[in-house]
Amino acid sequence: MSVTAAQGFTAAGIAAGIKDNGNPDLALVVNDGPRHAAAGVFTSNRVKAAPVLWSEQVLKGGEVSAVVLNSGGANACTGPKGFQDTHATAERAAQVLPGHSAGEIAVASTGLIGVLLPMDKLLPGIEKAAAELSAYGGEKAAIAIKTTDTVHKTAVAARDGWTVGGMAKGAGMLAPGLATMLVVLTTDADVDGPGLDEALRDATRVTFDRVDSDGCMSTNDTVLLLASGASGITPAHGEFADAVRTVCDDLARQLIGDAEGASKDIRIEVVNAASEDDAVEVGRSIARNNLLKCAIHGEDPNWGRVLSAIGTTRAAFEPDRLNVAINGVWVCRNGSVGEDRELVDMRYREVRITADLAAGSESAVIWANDLTADYVHENSAYSS
Amino acid sequence: MSVTAAQGFTAAGIAAGIKDNGNPDLALVVNDGPRHAAAGVFTSNRVKAAPVLWSEQVLKGGEVSAVVLNSGGANACTGPKGFQDTHATAERAAQVLPGHSAGEIAVASTGLIGVLLPMDKLLPGIEKAAAELSAYGGEKAAIAIKTTDTVHKTAVAARDGWTVGGMAKGAGMLAPGLATMLVVLTTDADVDGPGLDEALRDATRVTFDRVDSDGCMSTNDTVLLLASGASGITPAHGEFADAVRTVCDDLARQLIGDAEGASKDIRIEVVNAASEDDAVEVGRSIARNNLLKCAIHGEDPNWGRVLSAIGTTRAAFEPDRLNVAINGVWVCRNGSVGEDRELVDMRYREVRITADLAAGSESAVIWANDLTADYVHENSAYSS
Repeated sequence: MSVTAAQGFTAAGIAAGIKDNGNPDLALVVNDGPRHAAAGVFTSNRVKAAPVLWSEQVLKGGEVSAVVLNSGGANACTGPKGFQDTHATAERAAQVLPGHSAGEIAVASTGLIGVLLPMDKLLPGIEKAAAELSAYGGEKAAIAIKTTDTVHKTAVAARDGWTVGGMAKGAGMLAPGLATMLVVLTTDADVDGPGLDEALRDATRVTFDRVDSDGCMSTNDTVLLLASGASGITPAHGEFADAVRTVCDDLARQLIGDAEGASKDIRIEVVNAASEDDAVEVGRSIARNNLLKCAIHGEDPNWGRVLSAIGTTRAAFEPDRLNVAINGVWVCRNGSVGEDRELVDMRYREVRITADLAAGSESAVIWANDLTADYVHENSAYSS
Repeated sequence: MSVTAAQGFTAAGIAAGIKDNGNPDLALVVNDGPRHAAAGVFTSNRVKAAPVLWSEQVLKGGEVSAVVLNSGGANACTGPKGFQDTHATAERAAQVLPGHSAGEIAVASTGLIGVLLPMDKLLPGIEKAAAELSAYGGEKAAIAIKTTDTVHKTAVAARDGWTVGGMAKGAGMLAPGLATMLVVLTTDADVDGPGLDEALRDATRVTFDRVDSDGCMSTNDTVLLLASGASGITPAHGEFADAVRTVCDDLARQLIGDAEGASKDIRIEVVNAASEDDAVEVGRSIARNNLLKCAIHGEDPNWGRVLSAIGTTRAAFEPDRLNVAINGVWVCRNGSVGEDRELVDMRYREVRITADLAAGSESAVIWANDLTADYVHENSAYSS
């Protein structure tokens, strides 16, 4: 159901010819109101793609009435011409969507960095997509934003009279702040901009920001939350925030589950940390350790590599009090050899690593993937 | 020539049976004086192996008269028993080396983390190695410390009447502070402890500390510099420091050239940075970007991945003033498309990336490797 699960939204996904292979590559999501409240979070990479710079400006206006998304090109590191192209994209969408102005139209792009978009294909594509807008178009929109994703990703949380739905793409360059992703969430709940913003930031902080597939941070990450108010219901903030977090968590797990070349999803839980920041820092350090990621790929419960990753952090801990479990077996106790590593069963896709810092009571979960020859292959050949 | 190139040193390398495959696994380096001055630098990982903790203590005494090194086991994360084993190693060496005390004997270990060493094989091995000590034993010692290294690594800088020589091992878990390595440097120059320490720290800061093969920091890194004073010559500090740096640079390049599974050596030079720290931070960020490392493996001059790595740092720069060259071709100018990427020839093993931050006049060079399916394979199977 994706972005059209909530009332008040239409969407479309079409093949505009941006991708050479003819696959769908342009999506349009329109908020038909009555409200056009919106919130957004963007990559913390200091090298930001043109559409990120544009959409950040749009969000400052407080209203988003439509989003144009394309795959097949990131429009990042494309200079002034790239920004002009994003601007022209919003202008064309405003022309074909009566009653909308360019200043309320967000743009998101994904694909190869450093290449200008084929505007002669993209602009006519917007007109074509507008003609296909439908309250059932959510799936097609989700399909059109795929790059190396093998499946399209959608999620819905239906509540009592109102709904939060969403779509996501992202399969590589997944790292905190945010993962490489384009995400559009929609709701028919009647929530204002500040309410959306708070719910979205709370949700992304513990979902997309804690996905670290390959340690690489994108130039294009964009997560938008649009509210139509069409249900006429204003849920309690906690209830609304819970629904947004549920959808974000669902989509984040789908991103990890479809990461480029991955054969394992690694759930890293850091417990008994002195602070949540410590827990996150340790979790990310473990998530990014290539040697450990290779070991997990080889179904090798190599806890020494977990300890060597923890040792590179500034978190509070004593080396001889660290405990590590892999899939429930405490293979490291007090910084040394624990239970028999032969007891660890790593045959299945999900691998759970628990790192006990014995330094407090805070915790955090980071999701990562293993490192595989397929990842190397896919990313050696990406631009060719 | 290795550690026995300088006068006053003997060495040996033997197979003690620590490795199951019967390969050499125990090395002994002895300083026969007249001086026993020494300096050392160790891993900055907070999870330190037992021999690192021991050798740090030995160095505090200011004199090192011998070093026992083993491959086949890191003796890291092995608890109190691991430390007792290191202590016993030094004690046994003191017994078999007349006139030496355990408190002057450094120990270094390398291999798998989290496994106790087979002391029933290691201790008799020390006696065997002592019986084979020779002024021509440097090569054998260098061979005995190999783990996944495909070649042994030695270097020599011969000066006017005095010499600095050394050996190194290290092929994976190579990252700053330091790379995973055991290094023993020897000199017959008559230099005191503080002089050795200053020369060694200056050298490692710009050599071993700037090697970042796979972003993983070891628990066992050890670099020792021993001076016998046997030449009777005390060189000027600058001259001595230069020779030490030359040998460290030579060994560091050999480490990168033999990194696990690598097919490319990547020389990352960051220029026009506001500070040397900025240059190093940017260089390391580029060095650790898995997507870029894959692209280099695929001989793809994917400069967008360089920019996305730069964008994750706190260094001073403006995105639209960044320039990037790959093998001399400025494929990115002013943060956007520059010269034709088809002009970049990446057929050879060494790949040069120049990142121009246009923010100052400082620079730094970081060495890295590409990411390959062979790296994944080698590190998926390491402990099995």
